[in-house]
Order: sequence, then structure tokens, then C-alpha cells
Amino acid sequence: MKILVLMPSKKTSSDLFICSGIDYLSKLSIPFCADYKFIDPKIKRKEEENLLYKLSEGFFRVALDQNGKNLSSENFLLFLNKTSLVNTKICFIIGGAFGLNKEFVNNCDAQLSLSAMTMPHRMAFLVLCEQLFRASQINLGTAYHK
Amino acid sequence: MKILVLMPSKKTSSDLFICSGIDYLSKLSIPFCADYKFIDPKIKRKEEENLLYKLSEGFFRVALDQNGKNLSSENFLLFLNKTSLVNTKICFIIGGAFGLNKEFVNNCDAQLSLSAMTMPHRMAFLVLCEQLFRASQINLGTAYHK
Repeated sequence: MKILVLMPSKKTSSDLFICSGIDYLSKLSIPFCADYKFIDPKIKRKEEENLLYKLSEGFFRVALDQNGKNLSSENFLLFLNKTSLVNTKICFIIGGAFGLNKEFVNNCDAQLSLSAMTMPHRMAFLVLCEQLFRASQINLGTAYHK
Repeated sequence: MKILVLMPSKKTSSDLFICSGIDYLSKLSIPFCADYKFIDPKIKRKEEENLLYKLSEGFFRVALDQNGKNLSSENFLLFLNKTSLVNTKICFIIGGAFGLNKEFVNNCDAQLSLSAMTMPHRMAFLVLCEQLFRASQINLGTAYHK
């Protein structure tokens, strides 16, 4: 299962949330394998969406959106497993500082919400990456997810 | 409004999530004022709960629990404002690595959930602190919460 996380963000190796998120992604176990790509947050809205769409070509697109489905961590693993039967390449798309627009979100294959609360997008990246790591740990049956 | 965040955790000044959370708490604006206290995570379960209960004496106790209410950030501010009419001292209690037990949660005055997903307790601390900061920014009417 090839996972890609896309987000408009500066490439900040000094950002604590982003670095911790990347660290979680690097620890995923087989069959999960994750990568990430940040795009320039300064380009225009329409251009940004075109780029996010282009970079996720061939992937099952999951938009992170406040109005998306709230899943428990266990159900998030089920979601990943079920989706991988359709497409083994899954892309999570996080909006920039102003979120993703409605049309873009609706054009994605699925919509998930991490919380009813609004989080900074860098924090959403961190929470998502930890959930991906957690899913791989639940899948392995380790003690990480108690 | 005096806010206290309680959690069983090591005092780790090197923990990124905890330090970032404390940083958010330090930036709260009037009428919000927040403090935190960590208790020894190694003491026995019953002792831990007694201590959490004792330290939150006189406060309106809010347990952070997966089965609690999911509020949007705007409704979280409303919750704080409404609660402060009853008691201007509000204590948020986060469980340790194994969460809080059901009886303890039910004995609190309110139960809130940050996400349907299970988060490490240190990350829950970070997310809660950012929400408290966000609430104070919504209250001020700044551009932080878009």
C-alpha cells in the first residue's frame, strides 16, 4: 500500500510538527509505505489545486476536511485496507492555511476529518502521520495502540 | 477564567509536543489564563486518580475522553464561556498512556473528545493547548482562526 501525503507548506526542516510527522511516516511497517510532498504555499489558489490534483494522479484521493467522516483509529485501518482493494495507491491531501475549497474536496474519492475542531494544517499533518503509524501498528498487533 | 490542564506525564522539557503545548498556554489572552500540572505517571492507577481529583478540587472538571462530546473550535469557546458562568475555574484532565477509567470520567462535570481517533496523551495535550489558544483568539476576533 503506497501512501502519499500532500500539503502546501514551506519546506521547513526546523518545524517541529512537520519533522515529527515525517518521523512517524518513516516508521511505517509493511504493507504500508508512505511518502510526502510539500508544494509551494505561495502560489495562487487555483494553481495550488491543479498541482495537488496532478501530483495525486493515479492515486485514490482522500481530502482532509472538517466535514469529512470521523473514524476511530481502528476504523481508519479498515478504511485503508478496504481502499487498497480498489487502489493500492492512496493520497491524503491537506489544505494549506486556508483549507481546501469545497469543489476540490468533493472531487476527491473520499473525505475524512481528523477532528471537529480546526487545527493548524501543520498540526493536522502531524496527527495524520501518527494515525498512519498507529494503523500500521494495529495491523501488526503490537502494544502501541492500547 | 482560570484554566488548569492536568496530566500524568514525565516532566520532560525535551518533549516537543509538551513544550509546544506549554508555549500555546503561555500565549492565552485575557480573560483566559492557563496553567498546567504533570503528575508522576509511575504511581498506581487508583492513587493517580485520587491525585488528579485532589488537584482539581474547586474546579469545574472536564475529562478528555474518546466518548466525550466532539465540539467545533467555535463551540469549544462557547463551552468555555458558558462553563465560566457556573465556575470560573476549569480543569481539563487528560489520562496517561492508558487513558482515564470510566468511573473517573463519569464523575467529572463534563466529558469532551478532541477526536474520534486515539492519540498519544502527549499529542492530546498539544491539541488541547492549541484549542485553548484558538478559543482565546476567536474571542479576541483576530485572524488566527480562519
